[in-house]
Amino acid sequence: MPKQVDHSERRRKLAEACWQVIREGGIENASVRNVADAAGMSLGSLRHYFSTQSELIAFSMRLVSERVNERIASLALSGELRQDILLLSSQLLPLDEDRRLEGEVWLALSAKSLADPELLALFREVHDELLQGFRKMTAYWLGENPAAVLSPEAELEARRFHALVDGLAIHSLLAPESADPAALLELIGLHLDRLRPS
Amino acid sequence: MPKQVDHSERRRKLAEACWQVIREGGIENASVRNVADAAGMSLGSLRHYFSTQSELIAFSMRLVSERVNERIASLALSGELRQDILLLSSQLLPLDEDRRLEGEVWLALSAKSLADPELLALFREVHDELLQGFRKMTAYWLGENPAAVLSPEAELEARRFHALVDGLAIHSLLAPESADPAALLELIGLHLDRLRPS
Repeated sequence: MPKQVDHSERRRKLAEACWQVIREGGIENASVRNVADAAGMSLGSLRHYFSTQSELIAFSMRLVSERVNERIASLALSGELRQDILLLSSQLLPLDEDRRLEGEVWLALSAKSLADPELLALFREVHDELLQGFRKMTAYWLGENPAAVLSPEAELEARRFHALVDGLAIHSLLAPESADPAALLELIGLHLDRLRPS
Repeated sequence: MPKQVDHSERRRKLAEACWQVIREGGIENASVRNVADAAGMSLGSLRHYFSTQSELIAFSMRLVSERVNERIASLALSGELRQDILLLSSQLLPLDEDRRLEGEVWLALSAKSLADPELLALFREVHDELLQGFRKMTAYWLGENPAAVLSPEAELEARRFHALVDGLAIHSLLAPESADPAALLELIGLHLDRLRPS
């Protein structure tokens, strides 16, 4: 029987090697050759999975988003709304080593996407998915129907919340003194409280 | 008389060429050779001003911050606090072509700084300067003494405001439908109003 190769596992391994290369040397080092080396694979094997660097980068970007989504889907929500919104929104913040890695790759790829229309289109897809999540949380928080179109005010609030969390994520990545988990959660809690004073 | 060369003008011209190269091809294309070409200078002339790529990149980053500071210093403030805070904070948003260029370079260099400790140190300096500006605006807005240390609550609010504006800047760079100037100003105005309900 021929040896079975788990192709999706191989692709994932290459994408994770791509993350490491980006993290250690910046996006400018993420050539297919460097990524193949980091994954311990030949360039030919890599080309079997990704025929261009763009494909590899796009897949690596998608994997960040998949990991965040998987983590969110596996969260044990308490049913207490404020606590659950804190837990959900903080999946985007670099509060542990996994999330820091995701955040660094996300920042590097977002910068790259400015000069790469295909990557930018993918980036916007992920952005819109996330905004959709912020719309849901905001609807619940403001007592609107989360399955309906938000009121104009709630729509603004969803965008404000999304921008706040992404801004906090970037500040935490770049300024470690901003990355204290308790302080970040306090700040998001403050935001929620000001949004709907109790 | 020997020909006079305005050295600081030359350095500025090279940094602006570096911005253009980053904007068009991403940070991975910002080699000293490509930047010299874009500036119409020889590699030897560039090396006269910047002996390494790191120096060139760091200077290009500093120039973004200087341009923002110069623009802020030249603003005609109205004395009406809400309007003035909107005007000041929106200097960080890509509301016109100049600010979009600054924002794109800032994003590319912030990503690069994750794998470059020297650039990261510079990045944090600029970050702290900006946070200081947000502290001042927040103090004025909340009626605290802008020359004194903020109350813990105002300190949190300054960080929240700073993160919101940077998050909005990134969203505007990456998702043009988020970049409508009137909508961005409305969002910041909403933030101020919720911070100090009238």
